[in-house]
Amino acid sequence: MIPYPPSHSGTGTTTYPAPPAAPVVTADCLPAGFRYAAVAAGIKPSGTPDVTLIACEQPSTAAGVYTTNQVVAAPVVLSRGRTPTDRLWGIVINSGNANACTGTAGSQHAMAMTELAATALSQVNQSSASERVDPEQVLVMSTGIIGRPLPMDRIRHGIDRAAAQLGDRLEHFLQAADGILTTDQGRKVAAGRVEIDGRTLRLVGMAKGAGMIGPRMATMLGCLMTDAPLTGQQAQRLLQRAADRSFNCVSVEGHTSTNDSLVLLASGRSGGAPLDDAQLERFSELLDKVCVDLAIQIPTDGEGASHLIEVRVSGASDDRAADTVARSIAMSNLVKTAVAGGDPNWGRIVSAAGYAGPPIDANALALTLNGIRLLDAGQPLEVDLIAASELLKREHRTLIELTVGPGPGRAVHWTSDLNTRYVHINADYTT
Amino acid sequence: MIPYPPSHSGTGTTTYPAPPAAPVVTADCLPAGFRYAAVAAGIKPSGTPDVTLIACEQPSTAAGVYTTNQVVAAPVVLSRGRTPTDRLWGIVINSGNANACTGTAGSQHAMAMTELAATALSQVNQSSASERVDPEQVLVMSTGIIGRPLPMDRIRHGIDRAAAQLGDRLEHFLQAADGILTTDQGRKVAAGRVEIDGRTLRLVGMAKGAGMIGPRMATMLGCLMTDAPLTGQQAQRLLQRAADRSFNCVSVEGHTSTNDSLVLLASGRSGGAPLDDAQLERFSELLDKVCVDLAIQIPTDGEGASHLIEVRVSGASDDRAADTVARSIAMSNLVKTAVAGGDPNWGRIVSAAGYAGPPIDANALALTLNGIRLLDAGQPLEVDLIAASELLKREHRTLIELTVGPGPGRAVHWTSDLNTRYVHINADYTT
Repeated sequence: MIPYPPSHSGTGTTTYPAPPAAPVVTADCLPAGFRYAAVAAGIKPSGTPDVTLIACEQPSTAAGVYTTNQVVAAPVVLSRGRTPTDRLWGIVINSGNANACTGTAGSQHAMAMTELAATALSQVNQSSASERVDPEQVLVMSTGIIGRPLPMDRIRHGIDRAAAQLGDRLEHFLQAADGILTTDQGRKVAAGRVEIDGRTLRLVGMAKGAGMIGPRMATMLGCLMTDAPLTGQQAQRLLQRAADRSFNCVSVEGHTSTNDSLVLLASGRSGGAPLDDAQLERFSELLDKVCVDLAIQIPTDGEGASHLIEVRVSGASDDRAADTVARSIAMSNLVKTAVAGGDPNWGRIVSAAGYAGPPIDANALALTLNGIRLLDAGQPLEVDLIAASELLKREHRTLIELTVGPGPGRAVHWTSDLNTRYVHINADYTT
Repeated sequence: MIPYPPSHSGTGTTTYPAPPAAPVVTADCLPAGFRYAAVAAGIKPSGTPDVTLIACEQPSTAAGVYTTNQVVAAPVVLSRGRTPTDRLWGIVINSGNANACTGTAGSQHAMAMTELAATALSQVNQSSASERVDPEQVLVMSTGIIGRPLPMDRIRHGIDRAAAQLGDRLEHFLQAADGILTTDQGRKVAAGRVEIDGRTLRLVGMAKGAGMIGPRMATMLGCLMTDAPLTGQQAQRLLQRAADRSFNCVSVEGHTSTNDSLVLLASGRSGGAPLDDAQLERFSELLDKVCVDLAIQIPTDGEGASHLIEVRVSGASDDRAADTVARSIAMSNLVKTAVAGGDPNWGRIVSAAGYAGPPIDANALALTLNGIRLLDAGQPLEVDLIAASELLKREHRTLIELTVGPGPGRAVHWTSDLNTRYVHINADYTT
C-alpha cells in the first residue's frame, strides 16, 4: 500500500505508528500477454482515474470467485456467469459507482459496459485483428456507491479513451491498479515469479478495498494476471483455494460487499506444455503468496486504520473452529478500539473467543499480545500493562496469539483497528 | 435513562439530537418485600456507589437468565447454580470490577461475597431474625473491568455499610439502580403495575449496560422485583420469555459479555392465591413491557450513542429468519456510522440483509427509513436524500423498516449508532 498520507486527520491529537512499506512490483514479474489502461471519466468526484481496461492479447483463461451476498451487484451476476472460460479477451472496471441495487437498469448498464468494451477491444487489439471480441468474452466489475444509476455517457467515453491508451509496461499496470481504487489510501499490488523445470512463470495482482470488507468470499475487487498455461478448471480450483487462504481471511468491519470479485487471467504466454500436478502445486504456492501479500494490504489500509491486527488461534478442535474464533475476535469493535487506543484490555479478546461458538477450554486459555504473555492455563499473569500499552502504540502490526485448548486446529485472520478516522470516513459518505 | 449529560464531547463539531425522556418510576409501583442500598466502596475510581445490596424481607422466589459466553465470570457460575429457587434472601452486586478471567481466586472471591452478604443480612433482617441466611440463598453479580482481582477488603466494608443502610423507599431503590452502573451515562429503571381480579401486582426493574452488549442471552445486569406470588418454575419461564423479547433484542456493538445476569425476584407480598394461567399471562405482559422499557434504555445509552436505531424486518420465512436479518443490519458498523452521520446510505442496510444468511427475495425488497420509502420491489426510488439526511440528524430514534420477501416472519432489534465518542470511550478504557 503506497503511499499512506494522513489525509483523515481524526481528532488531531493521536499519533499512530507508521504503516509498513508495501510490496514492490518490478517489471520482470510482468507476465506477457496483457495490456492495461485507466482514465479519469468523471465518475469519481475526486477526478482520479475511474475507468480501467485490462486487455488480453490473445484469448485467455479466466477464473473468478465472487461475493456470497444475496444482494449482488449487476456486474457480478454477469461476470459470474462467464467464468471459468478459456476464451477471455478482457475486463472493464469502473470505480466510484457499484452498480448495485440499481434494478433492471443496472443489469442493462452492466451488459452495455461489456458491449462497449468488446467493440473497443475489437478495434484496438491488433495482434488478433481477425477475431472479433464478443461481449460474452469480457468481464465487468464495478465498485463505489450503492444504489445510484451508472453515468453511461461518461463510462462510454472512458472505455473508448482507455482502449486507445492500452500498454503492456509496468507504468500501465500501475495506472490500472490506481484506477480501481475508491476509499483506498493507496495502491494495492503484489507480484512474484517462480522457476519450474526451466520455465519462468510470472504473476502480478492488483486489488482495491478499504471498507465494506467481510471475509466470507473473495473480498473486494482483485485481478491477477499470469503467463502460466492453465485451463479454466485448473485456474478456478487454484484461485478458490488461494482466496480461502488470503482474501477470505481479512476483514475491516466484516460487512460483506455486494460487489466482491476476484479473477485470475492466464495468457499461457510462458509457452511450454500444460503444467503437470507437481508443477501446478508449485504455481499454486506462488499464487497463494501473492494473494496473501495483496489481501493483507486491505486491512492495513482499512478505512482509517492505524494498526494491522493479526489474530492467530490455535488449539481448537479443527481449523474451521479456529477460524470461527479468530473471526469473532477480529470482528469485535471492543478489541479493535482497544488496539487503536493502545489499550492491552485482553479481557475483550478472551470474551470474544468465548461467544464465538466453538468449544473453549477456559482452563487451557493462553494469550500472548505482541509477544507478552498475559494469560496462561486460564490464569491471568502479573504484567506491566503500561509497557504493554507502549508496545501496542509503537508497533503498526498487533499480534494476538490465543490458545483455546489442546486441539490441532489453527487459523489466522487479519483485520484493522477501529478508530475515530473510520467513523469520520463512514459517517458522511453519500451526502 | 436519566440524565444524559454530554460528558463525552467527541470532536466538538457535531450536534446530536436530544435523547428521549426515560420512563419515570413512581413509589406506587414499588412492590412490598424488598429493601435496597448502595454505597461507594472505592472500587470505581470515580468514587460513585459501587457496592449494592438488594435484600428480601422474606424468603423469596428467584429466577435468572445468564450470559451464554463460554468465558464466564465467577459470579455468574455461582448465581446460575442457585436459580431458580423459592428461598432467596438477597443479591450482592459490585460495579467497577467484573471478577471475570480471574482464575481460581475469582471463584473464591465470588463465594466470599455471598458469605459476607449472608452474614450481614442475617444480622439486619429484623423481620426474620430467627432465620439465619445461608450463603446459598444469596446471588452475586459483578460488572466492570475484566481480569483484575477484586479488592476484597473494600468489598467487605462496602457490604457491611450497605447492609446498615437498607431501606424500602423509592430513594433506596434508585440508589441501588445507580450503584450497579459502570460506563452508563445514566440510571436505567422501569416499573409498572397491573390489576388482576381485584389484586394489584407491582413490578420494578433496574439495569446497567452501555458497552459489551451482545444479544444472545440476557444482556447486561438486571434485577426485577415483584410482589406477585410466583413459584420458581413460573418465574423462570416468564423471565426467559421476557428476556427473549427484550434484552435479547438489543445490542450496542454485539460483543457478548462474560457477566450478563438478569434476575426476577418475587416476594409474594401481594397476597392471595397462586396465579392461574390467565392471571400469569397478564402478569407476563407486564413483565415483557417493563423488560422492553428497560432494554431499550441500553442502546439509547449505548456508549457514545447519539441515536437509538430500531430495525424492523418483515416478510422473512419465519420470525427466527427475520431476527437474523435484523441483527445483521443492527451489527453493521457501516449502517451504524451512516446513522451517526445522518447519511441515508441505504445500500449498506440492504447489503447487510443480503449477507445475513436467510433467503432474501431481491425483487421483493422494500425499505423505509424514518418513514421515507427508498426502495420498492427491489427498485430504488427517486428520493430527496438531503431531506432524508436532515430527518436522520433531527430525530433521536432512527426507524429502519425492511421487507425481505412475502413470508410471515417478523422481528425487531434495537441498537445504537457508532460515532467517534464510542471510539474515544473504548480506545482507552483500562490504561
